[in-house]
Amino acid sequence: MSNASKSSPAQPQHFSDLRDRDLVVCIVGATGAVGEVLLEVLEERAFPIAELRPLASQRSAGTTIQFRGKAIEVAEAVPDAFDGADFVFFAATGDLSKSLAPEAARRGAIAIDKSNTWRMHDDVPLVVPEINPETLPDHRGIVSCPNCTTIGLVMSLEPIRRAAGLEELVVTTLQAASGAGRDGVEELADQQAALAAGRSLEPKVFASAIANNVVPLCENFREDDYSTEEMKLRLETQKIFGQPELPIAMTCVRVPVPVGHSATALVKTRRPIAVDEVRQALGAFAGVEVIDDPSERVFPTPADVVGRDEVLVGRLRADLDSDRLWLWEVSDNLRKGAATNAVQIAEALRALPPSPHGPGAF
Amino acid sequence: MSNASKSSPAQPQHFSDLRDRDLVVCIVGATGAVGEVLLEVLEERAFPIAELRPLASQRSAGTTIQFRGKAIEVAEAVPDAFDGADFVFFAATGDLSKSLAPEAARRGAIAIDKSNTWRMHDDVPLVVPEINPETLPDHRGIVSCPNCTTIGLVMSLEPIRRAAGLEELVVTTLQAASGAGRDGVEELADQQAALAAGRSLEPKVFASAIANNVVPLCENFREDDYSTEEMKLRLETQKIFGQPELPIAMTCVRVPVPVGHSATALVKTRRPIAVDEVRQALGAFAGVEVIDDPSERVFPTPADVVGRDEVLVGRLRADLDSDRLWLWEVSDNLRKGAATNAVQIAEALRALPPSPHGPGAF
Repeated sequence: MSNASKSSPAQPQHFSDLRDRDLVVCIVGATGAVGEVLLEVLEERAFPIAELRPLASQRSAGTTIQFRGKAIEVAEAVPDAFDGADFVFFAATGDLSKSLAPEAARRGAIAIDKSNTWRMHDDVPLVVPEINPETLPDHRGIVSCPNCTTIGLVMSLEPIRRAAGLEELVVTTLQAASGAGRDGVEELADQQAALAAGRSLEPKVFASAIANNVVPLCENFREDDYSTEEMKLRLETQKIFGQPELPIAMTCVRVPVPVGHSATALVKTRRPIAVDEVRQALGAFAGVEVIDDPSERVFPTPADVVGRDEVLVGRLRADLDSDRLWLWEVSDNLRKGAATNAVQIAEALRALPPSPHGPGAF
Repeated sequence: MSNASKSSPAQPQHFSDLRDRDLVVCIVGATGAVGEVLLEVLEERAFPIAELRPLASQRSAGTTIQFRGKAIEVAEAVPDAFDGADFVFFAATGDLSKSLAPEAARRGAIAIDKSNTWRMHDDVPLVVPEINPETLPDHRGIVSCPNCTTIGLVMSLEPIRRAAGLEELVVTTLQAASGAGRDGVEELADQQAALAAGRSLEPKVFASAIANNVVPLCENFREDDYSTEEMKLRLETQKIFGQPELPIAMTCVRVPVPVGHSATALVKTRRPIAVDEVRQALGAFAGVEVIDDPSERVFPTPADVVGRDEVLVGRLRADLDSDRLWLWEVSDNLRKGAATNAVQIAEALRALPPSPHGPGAF
């Protein structure tokens, strides 16, 4: 059963050279909101795929998805489906990632996990390729993709961190319904249609009505009265920046926007930095675009970022009482916040020489 | 022409005793979003009115409004319309307040102004009656009502200020479309209907699309890249609290909500204060209600506060890295944020003995 029984323990398949061949790629959660965008991004970026295996929970197995002009039937996500795979993207529930990502790794694939399950594990790199690609070679068969909210924030902060260091953050997020998956988008649309017809619908996905409302809870509450989403933002940002003690104060709010997460951030840097220098640093950073011209009423909104991979940053200005600075960032939570970042991780992994590490025990 | 020619300069009409009689009340902007709620609130609170004069710009004059079961024709807001008035509520544009509030004061009325025009004037009290009623007797014929965003924030902070003092604030607001008046509400509804029909509409009131989007600009930009709305929040809060140096960092965002402003605030107090003590202080403060039970997923949202006069506060929790604390507050921007606060000001003014001050020159 174990990979060790099929090949040399020192060189399981996922530590073989991936650079010169087309790959076998599985997608767990291929029918979900992120899975659908993942298929689009793999096509757009011409990811070298020899065989694509769309997988899903039993409920969605048997449906078909389209990839490169062909219909492919969705199979059930069971361990054997990973046999011979190079990459397994997990874009489904945390439960599926928990049980199946180790199975993928054991079979010699590299699991690229979009769920929260493995992000804080010591043997799992948590990667935004523009920021910390140097952590990728340490993987043991599982690599985590940060939460959609985290990715937009850290992308907008990394150029500032490089230029002046980070000392403290205060963040409020305004998160799209699709951050809660397809069910979230549908709940928003259904409630909007009901309101337009003079009715109202009971919330199911979100803890309060989301149409024509804002909800200061993303996901669930913890015992310390922070939300699980808020703690992801904090812990993941600290891990990605390699600053486990970085003070981050945060509130996460759900807003009636289908796609596109936004955040305000008040940033205290280690050395004071002028807004113009921040603007230059952001503008020079791959994957970030500055959209900021108050004199022309120009700033980025979620509607501007849908379908794009760049994180858009605006409202740059100095705090009036300190040497901190404000920024506003928006990102497509399904693309750079999820699918694009996951594919970028796969691209970066593929470009690496075979890893010297053995597989981890997860 | 001047009031002085009609009565003793030492005792113009608006410094006469208002306590024992029904009053003559004008409403400038009676047909607007705030004006309409003002009429409701005056009815609900049984404000003692002998004569109500709805007024508006030339464009809206001639229409009728309903008050206490009677239709009353709206007259044009011209200076002579204030003859004999006791109170003139201004719920229209800043331009009308600028030209007409001094005319009202000159005629012996007290102007209660909802616009931004007079708020920072040294001779104009800027009043939330629960917080700084002691400034009312200093009026010279004009009293200002703070901006809707400011009122919710200062109401949620005042109990904390009294208990522990305020040292620094970081605020992000999520403001409803009705903060931009009836045109704002209509633009949101029109854009939502267009989107549902598969079309889109060019923004007019807001600087970007507001339906299914969030817009990090309320009102206009200043030369320092802050918005006029952000600076109102800062300067008004400092004036109301009598702390002109209070550091306040702020970003104001428009969200696709018809009514109900929200804000996150990270609060640094002068002396550290436990969350439980904050909760008690808020709960004991008239006009504030704590709605905060994370274990039951309970927190306030804009939908919960529509039609209510209380400011609702939740998400109380300690910062994880400092002795600051987070709160989330929502308020009905048309009621406590505007109409109710204005009527409360009138009630408080009416209860005062005649003012010893002469009229101001505005």
